[in-house]
Amino acid sequence: MSVLSTHTQTTASQATAVDLGPAVALSCRECGERFPLSPEFACRSCFGPLVIAYELPDGDPEALRARIEAGPQSIWRYAPLLPVPATVAERPNLNPGCTPLVRADRLAAELGVTGELYVKDDSANPTHSFKDRVVACAVEAARAFGFTTLSCSSTGNLAGAVGAAAARAGLRSCVFIPEGLEQGKVVMAAVYGGEVVAIDGTYDDVNRFCSELIGDPAGEGWGFVNVNLRPYYSEGSKTLAFEICEKLGWRLPDQLVIPIASGSQLTKIDKGLRELVAVGLVEDRPYRIFGAQATGCSPVAQAFRAGYDVVRPVRPDTIAKSLAIGNPADGPYVLDIARRTGGAVEDVSDEQIVDAITLLARTEGIFAETAGGVTLGVTRELIEAGTLDPSLTTVVLNTGDGLKTLDAVAPVAGPTATIPPSLDAFRAAGLG
Amino acid sequence: MSVLSTHTQTTASQATAVDLGPAVALSCRECGERFPLSPEFACRSCFGPLVIAYELPDGDPEALRARIEAGPQSIWRYAPLLPVPATVAERPNLNPGCTPLVRADRLAAELGVTGELYVKDDSANPTHSFKDRVVACAVEAARAFGFTTLSCSSTGNLAGAVGAAAARAGLRSCVFIPEGLEQGKVVMAAVYGGEVVAIDGTYDDVNRFCSELIGDPAGEGWGFVNVNLRPYYSEGSKTLAFEICEKLGWRLPDQLVIPIASGSQLTKIDKGLRELVAVGLVEDRPYRIFGAQATGCSPVAQAFRAGYDVVRPVRPDTIAKSLAIGNPADGPYVLDIARRTGGAVEDVSDEQIVDAITLLARTEGIFAETAGGVTLGVTRELIEAGTLDPSLTTVVLNTGDGLKTLDAVAPVAGPTATIPPSLDAFRAAGLG
Repeated sequence: MSVLSTHTQTTASQATAVDLGPAVALSCRECGERFPLSPEFACRSCFGPLVIAYELPDGDPEALRARIEAGPQSIWRYAPLLPVPATVAERPNLNPGCTPLVRADRLAAELGVTGELYVKDDSANPTHSFKDRVVACAVEAARAFGFTTLSCSSTGNLAGAVGAAAARAGLRSCVFIPEGLEQGKVVMAAVYGGEVVAIDGTYDDVNRFCSELIGDPAGEGWGFVNVNLRPYYSEGSKTLAFEICEKLGWRLPDQLVIPIASGSQLTKIDKGLRELVAVGLVEDRPYRIFGAQATGCSPVAQAFRAGYDVVRPVRPDTIAKSLAIGNPADGPYVLDIARRTGGAVEDVSDEQIVDAITLLARTEGIFAETAGGVTLGVTRELIEAGTLDPSLTTVVLNTGDGLKTLDAVAPVAGPTATIPPSLDAFRAAGLG
Repeated sequence: MSVLSTHTQTTASQATAVDLGPAVALSCRECGERFPLSPEFACRSCFGPLVIAYELPDGDPEALRARIEAGPQSIWRYAPLLPVPATVAERPNLNPGCTPLVRADRLAAELGVTGELYVKDDSANPTHSFKDRVVACAVEAARAFGFTTLSCSSTGNLAGAVGAAAARAGLRSCVFIPEGLEQGKVVMAAVYGGEVVAIDGTYDDVNRFCSELIGDPAGEGWGFVNVNLRPYYSEGSKTLAFEICEKLGWRLPDQLVIPIASGSQLTKIDKGLRELVAVGLVEDRPYRIFGAQATGCSPVAQAFRAGYDVVRPVRPDTIAKSLAIGNPADGPYVLDIARRTGGAVEDVSDEQIVDAITLLARTEGIFAETAGGVTLGVTRELIEAGTLDPSLTTVVLNTGDGLKTLDAVAPVAGPTATIPPSLDAFRAAGLG
């Protein structure tokens, strides 16, 4: 319990100084008990996960919409709905977000989709994954709580996002990754000059180690973005929901397909959609949320199919390393959302992942990392099974960049031919 | 001469149908002779390079500024100053541009810059290099002239940009690269499903081969973005100038540092700045343009130092492969601009390139490819030599993404340590 008592002290001394905009308290997702804003992540009463409680803008949706639309081209346009100070855009940060929502007509034609099909392409973020969104929010919390070192457990993308965000903000960083990640992710984690510690184990081992470190003097003054700053950090994923609805003309999509690692992103996108309804920015109507996993790490999909409310941990074995979390913290919430909205959770094989990456590349010119392949692969499977309605408006998330998972597609993406620089050789190779 | 006569026929039949917005003709940069808009690149009279002649908006800069500011968040906001139809944003394309102009205070402090220092970060483009800008313009020209295959000679970045743009637009693509490029660039070129032909030779060999292919029946109906579509293509680089000035509050910067491959980008940024003055969007004042090369491929820097007007070709040997053009087509124009504006052309070693990449990463969280390292390395050298004034407003270009040149930094960007998941191991490694 040393963790909790340490944090309680921090809270007591800083409770009045914390300005995180509309965020007013932490609230337990399970029992509802409230606590002052602090770097805590588990309820002191029931150990349930803590979430942010807000005083959201009310009364004048038109004014809020105008304020957002006049805001910066980054997630900070949604500052009134995030746990960040109003002046957030003026501080040095990576300004992620406002990534393209690509109308994917050529992809739709191949998939037999007759409704509107969109790809939300988050590879356009500064370090080319959606993680820049959540880390940007965590940086504001770290600043508010006086942390000088930014840390995380990571499957790769998060390590790069933390390293880059810390560099821009002038913070120290120390990130933890499982050994054996893709070269692109390791180099990107290390190039920003922070410490990168490879752990001999899976992501779940890394995550457990970080939880230990938080309770240890060695971890004092450290903001672990996805552990003790998790309530703040995870709110950043709501901006995906905000951007999708704004780009659709302040309208909810009918169907969303979202990858599942810890499950946090999916639950926060759902939360973001409901908040937009609550503040009157979009009209309420039903939407369905679908979750996507790789077969080699599909504990949530397995639980969904079996009708379970809880998720049995697995040992990951898939090329989709950014989704390789065998014990997903938000698994039960994902199951609840998929069932409540009339969605589903499905998985695809590594071969289907690669097929989907090349399908997206050749139809829309978007080079997704393996996680994007998982999401599109599952989309295809859901359409073929009749689970996803091809006549509705559907948004598929690409959360990362193909340049970080080159090995997955290298066997199918090489030169057609290698020839000397002559027309004769060109013709001899059957190209002319 | 078969090339020119073929193109003349194409022109004659299509001259009236071509709608490329404010572009009204091709004009010879050397002798000034005018020709109808067509897929030609060399003057029929003097063989000088052809450039676009415009009817630019005049009379009401405020109206033009308002129109731009209300436009899309992409290069198409500048459509009134580009050779593209007014409806360009409605067609399927990658919508590049509007990349961040990062205020780089931490970098400035390390470099001893006391004025405003900015990094224009073009790694934020769809395929993570500035090439998306020029290719997007070339696609419009290809459509206007009825080409169905998009092609190019490339040092890597362009091949990916062409592959992706062709996929989005629904065109065929066939790109040519020198053998031995970085894995990231080869995979990215091939993943979009077009043909990728590796040529056993240097980029200059590839370029010569493409010129041959244009005159051959095998190349008929092909739009080589940087050969027969070059006048249209190269105009896309002007958007870097437009975006920089708009983000500075419609103001010219004092100094720009720009990498040199063929030299086209530098000359078009200069052209863009002068066009903004001509249409009244910015006030005229002196600016200085500096060019940056790698020592292993520095023909323009060598000519600049020697006081020559022409450039002697070299055989490239540098890790900055995207700048490895030994016979840069626009070299003489670069020399002219650097001298006319009071700038310079300088070069840095491969070691300095790597140093500059890590400097930019750890101060600003921007992971540049080797070309970005060249530009920042030269910036540092120019400051130390007193050639670049550290008290003025300076913009440094990062034109590409570090994920595509991992090998350059891999030796200096690995894990700090690899340990088992235990606090004891953490401490034993000197980390706790």
